[in-house]
Amino acid sequence: MVKIPKSHPRYWSLYYRERIIEGMEKGMTAKAGLIAHGRGEAFDYLIGERTIEPAKKAMKAAVAKLLLAKHPVVSVNGNVAALVPRETIELAKALNAKLEVNLFYRTEDRVKAIADELRRYDPEIEILGVNPTKRIPGLEHERGRVDEKGIWKADVVVVPLEDGDRTEALVRMGKFVITVDLNPLSRSARMADITIVDNIVRAYPRMTELTREMKDYSRDELLGIVQGYDNGNVLSGVLDHMRNRLTRLSEGGVWRKKELD
Amino acid sequence: MVKIPKSHPRYWSLYYRERIIEGMEKGMTAKAGLIAHGRGEAFDYLIGERTIEPAKKAMKAAVAKLLLAKHPVVSVNGNVAALVPRETIELAKALNAKLEVNLFYRTEDRVKAIADELRRYDPEIEILGVNPTKRIPGLEHERGRVDEKGIWKADVVVVPLEDGDRTEALVRMGKFVITVDLNPLSRSARMADITIVDNIVRAYPRMTELTREMKDYSRDELLGIVQGYDNGNVLSGVLDHMRNRLTRLSEGGVWRKKELD
Repeated sequence: MVKIPKSHPRYWSLYYRERIIEGMEKGMTAKAGLIAHGRGEAFDYLIGERTIEPAKKAMKAAVAKLLLAKHPVVSVNGNVAALVPRETIELAKALNAKLEVNLFYRTEDRVKAIADELRRYDPEIEILGVNPTKRIPGLEHERGRVDEKGIWKADVVVVPLEDGDRTEALVRMGKFVITVDLNPLSRSARMADITIVDNIVRAYPRMTELTREMKDYSRDELLGIVQGYDNGNVLSGVLDHMRNRLTRLSEGGVWRKKELD
Repeated sequence: MVKIPKSHPRYWSLYYRERIIEGMEKGMTAKAGLIAHGRGEAFDYLIGERTIEPAKKAMKAAVAKLLLAKHPVVSVNGNVAALVPRETIELAKALNAKLEVNLFYRTEDRVKAIADELRRYDPEIEILGVNPTKRIPGLEHERGRVDEKGIWKADVVVVPLEDGDRTEALVRMGKFVITVDLNPLSRSARMADITIVDNIVRAYPRMTELTREMKDYSRDELLGIVQGYDNGNVLSGVLDHMRNRLTRLSEGGVWRKKELD
């Protein structure tokens, strides 16, 4: 990995960029995953690289729904495995959810590389999706393969950094779909039941913490949180946040400014 | 290159994505260049994938300044060579500017691959930066190397898709710096003297055309254009444009919408 001095003003951004490149070198992340990561960076820039209120609301509703679920599943792809392997395992364990490797550009080598990476953090962890026997209707063969014990059977699925076609197909199958996506305009963001517009490196640790806090909530309390949640409203809130930030930056001027608020 | 049907709604976006991947396969583009391209794609999406008024103003001032320059230089990196090799040569020729290969992740193989690519379009073209002997002060060794006959001597430089640290170092050296960058908040965009917030695939052909049109302008006319230009104002204009587009999208709502305006 390229060594980045901690003093660089863009240290964390460059650090995760190197993680994604390393993910590609390990055979986990596709080339298109690198480009997708860059798209995420742009939206994170606009948000201000912090967790905003609409994302906090979405996470709370997501955790409530996952705690109520009978068969919750957390999906892992090449970018997720590169950025948050440990955090994914921690979240799935806190939720008692299954972990499933599920890839848009599926090859057996990539599935194996991702499973190996996850096992570096927990050698005992159960990983689904290695030999998927079922298919999501309406998707091309390789893109639709899912595990009978995982996404196929799930009532609630977390599909972070996901392709729009697949998110939509899961919604059509009747799954309750939670996504994490920095682009509030992406088809995944627009199609999911709950859309967490945040960087997954910030979102997953916070969701794990929330899960631990909310585990003792009553069923009614959890149901109330889910019923009171409005994803359309949350997405508009994200767009408003970006809009207001752009207004402030425009009014204050950005030229030759060393730092942005 | 993957064949994309011309009818695809995202044809041009996918086409240039393939060009960048091909650039990497040819040894010109760094992996981090793919991520940077993705970031650009996202900002282009927000702009609406067209050349907006503030960019037109910036291009006109840039061309005026370049026509007034004693030693104009156009810099080429791996992403530029992948996206607009022919257009870069055309712009440099129209401007009577030098071409210099200048890389953030410099290796001799990458410099050679880029020079070879440019020579495919014009075997006679002079390419600087192959054996750079000077250094930009304040930059780490490999990242600061420049050509004595090129950027070192230049009064006006075009550094498109450039790293923020390098843009800033060139400004500190007293160069007049013009950048092309889709992110109006990037450090390059904030530090340059003139910032063209546009996709380079649209900007370069337009700048070449402008150069041909403006070649007959008087020196006073060109000076007037440069003096009347305000980069802070132009950057705020770009942010306002993005904000207005987000406002429209937010007001219309985006959840479960199949298409966005």
